[in-house]
Amino acid sequence: MKQVLDIPAELSGIQQWVLDGLVAVTDEIERALHSDVPAVAALCKQVEQFRGKMLRPTLVLVSGAACGASTDEPPTTELLKLAAVVEMVHMATLVHDDVLDEAEIRRRSQTINDKAGNEAAVLLGDYLISASFRLCASLDDPEPSRLIGKVSMELCEGELLQIQNRDNLSIDEATYFEILEGKTAALVGACTRLGSRAGGASQTIQNSMDVFGRSIGSAFQVQDDLLDLLGTEDVVGKTLGRDLQKGKLTLPLIHHLGNLSHESRARSLTLLENASETRAEATGAKAKAHTNELVQSLKESDSLEYARTTAKSLIERAKSALLPLDDTPARSVLQLLADAVLTRDR
Amino acid sequence: MKQVLDIPAELSGIQQWVLDGLVAVTDEIERALHSDVPAVAALCKQVEQFRGKMLRPTLVLVSGAACGASTDEPPTTELLKLAAVVEMVHMATLVHDDVLDEAEIRRRSQTINDKAGNEAAVLLGDYLISASFRLCASLDDPEPSRLIGKVSMELCEGELLQIQNRDNLSIDEATYFEILEGKTAALVGACTRLGSRAGGASQTIQNSMDVFGRSIGSAFQVQDDLLDLLGTEDVVGKTLGRDLQKGKLTLPLIHHLGNLSHESRARSLTLLENASETRAEATGAKAKAHTNELVQSLKESDSLEYARTTAKSLIERAKSALLPLDDTPARSVLQLLADAVLTRDR
Repeated sequence: MKQVLDIPAELSGIQQWVLDGLVAVTDEIERALHSDVPAVAALCKQVEQFRGKMLRPTLVLVSGAACGASTDEPPTTELLKLAAVVEMVHMATLVHDDVLDEAEIRRRSQTINDKAGNEAAVLLGDYLISASFRLCASLDDPEPSRLIGKVSMELCEGELLQIQNRDNLSIDEATYFEILEGKTAALVGACTRLGSRAGGASQTIQNSMDVFGRSIGSAFQVQDDLLDLLGTEDVVGKTLGRDLQKGKLTLPLIHHLGNLSHESRARSLTLLENASETRAEATGAKAKAHTNELVQSLKESDSLEYARTTAKSLIERAKSALLPLDDTPARSVLQLLADAVLTRDR
Repeated sequence: MKQVLDIPAELSGIQQWVLDGLVAVTDEIERALHSDVPAVAALCKQVEQFRGKMLRPTLVLVSGAACGASTDEPPTTELLKLAAVVEMVHMATLVHDDVLDEAEIRRRSQTINDKAGNEAAVLLGDYLISASFRLCASLDDPEPSRLIGKVSMELCEGELLQIQNRDNLSIDEATYFEILEGKTAALVGACTRLGSRAGGASQTIQNSMDVFGRSIGSAFQVQDDLLDLLGTEDVVGKTLGRDLQKGKLTLPLIHHLGNLSHESRARSLTLLENASETRAEATGAKAKAHTNELVQSLKESDSLEYARTTAKSLIERAKSALLPLDDTPARSVLQLLADAVLTRDR
């Protein structure tokens, strides 16, 4: 959390409670991944280096505290286990995403070592998801297992829908949000829902907390799209190129292409293709010229502003979902986390 | 079951009960895999063609009947769901195995379509395993979810241990059985344990049924190794070559290499390498000569007989585990299934 937020002094109590909790969550994960097979243990040690800001476990813990869990004592075992479960699901998706991404890199230099790594990564991802389900099933409450199973299916659906729409320059906003909902928002919604449930929230509050999580998850992704475009022109050229090479359209581009006259659209599509192709050929100056022209078009169609407004309204929706909660330090932290989605610059 | 066994007339009642049950299991699977995303639905339709003899669901149903489930009415929803769960876990492993295997084929002709298929297969396997966990978590009893989570981890451990021992010509029998236990036996043990549990078996009987399942699962794999060697010499040359190319040693070969003098071992290792290499080069006559010589050595060291005896004693152990059960048609079917492992020729 420290890495994500500047926490005011009056919230230092809850901050410490979360930080201590995250240490315990790390222990839970390590226990859940324990293997007597040395090769598996070694892979699990490696994958622990993937761990980033632990945003998802943080959301579980803070949502628990915001909905009744005591912060005078360490988080309950249930909260810790739930926090470990969502992080393990996230780790599994990272590992399998890497398999998919590495596949491209390997096309250029494929070695036997690379292949062994690919196989191991598929199996390690399977191991992680199985361990997370097993840990989740160790709880007395069966609901988390049902939800995590459902959300994991949605994750796959989101990814598959994205693959299906690769290089689809006519993708519409509804499909964009459907992908985002499955790939990102569903799991974040599960974090805040399950945390609140373990804190003792009513069904109504659990539903609100799900809306909170999904909304900040969606806003986070839209903000990601914007960050790809809001740097210097050099940075723009680079990231635009990367997205295009992956055949992935971001919200500003979708808005841009969807709001043009037939003629302007044709021009922008040509620009997009040029930006993508010149990028692939890595001819710096030409790529830069093409992307500059494209970014200028995005500004003219107010597409950056449109994405910015979308992210803002998602965060507004998230914060509204917190209104029924008691005014506690934990709720304040959730509000700060929501605001931070819009102000982060990376 | 029809494809696996010749069922005597007095068992036709239980046979029909199982066959009708398997139709209902297929419906459960279809419901569990339902997706509103057309691309996902299409992939699930494709994967249904993978479905083979439904041996695992059959074992769940018959184990249920052998331990108290009524065969006067259709299998309970719990039995049907459990049967669907184990088949979906199995399907997930098949899909991911294909990803690993296809990776090899692709080394020679890698197309963009191939790659799209690879990515989709990773995600489809994830979707299948998630759906199986979700279905399992829908049961009132939390035990199946805990066991399936554990067994899924063991599956990955077995596969990873196998990858780690690829091309290891010094692999010992203990490691061979550790791989086999994880890759095959654990899930078959879960089938018979969970079926018996849903039928109302005591913990003691559930444990016996786990031994039964694990033993026939192990015997099945050893028999597989033998079938690779017991055909005509042409067939032998082909399959030996395939196993060697995959860097996978089978039980007869492990026994053979582990029971030779230093000098004979060196000769056999050279033969193995020759058989593998000439196979890779597809120089028919030379490969045949090499493998013939190797098979002759296997006979001299009684290694085929050793594997045969191992499979037999596993089946004896399996049948002993059935002794505490009441003498019912369902138990007779389990005995027949155990015997069939040894007599099957493919």
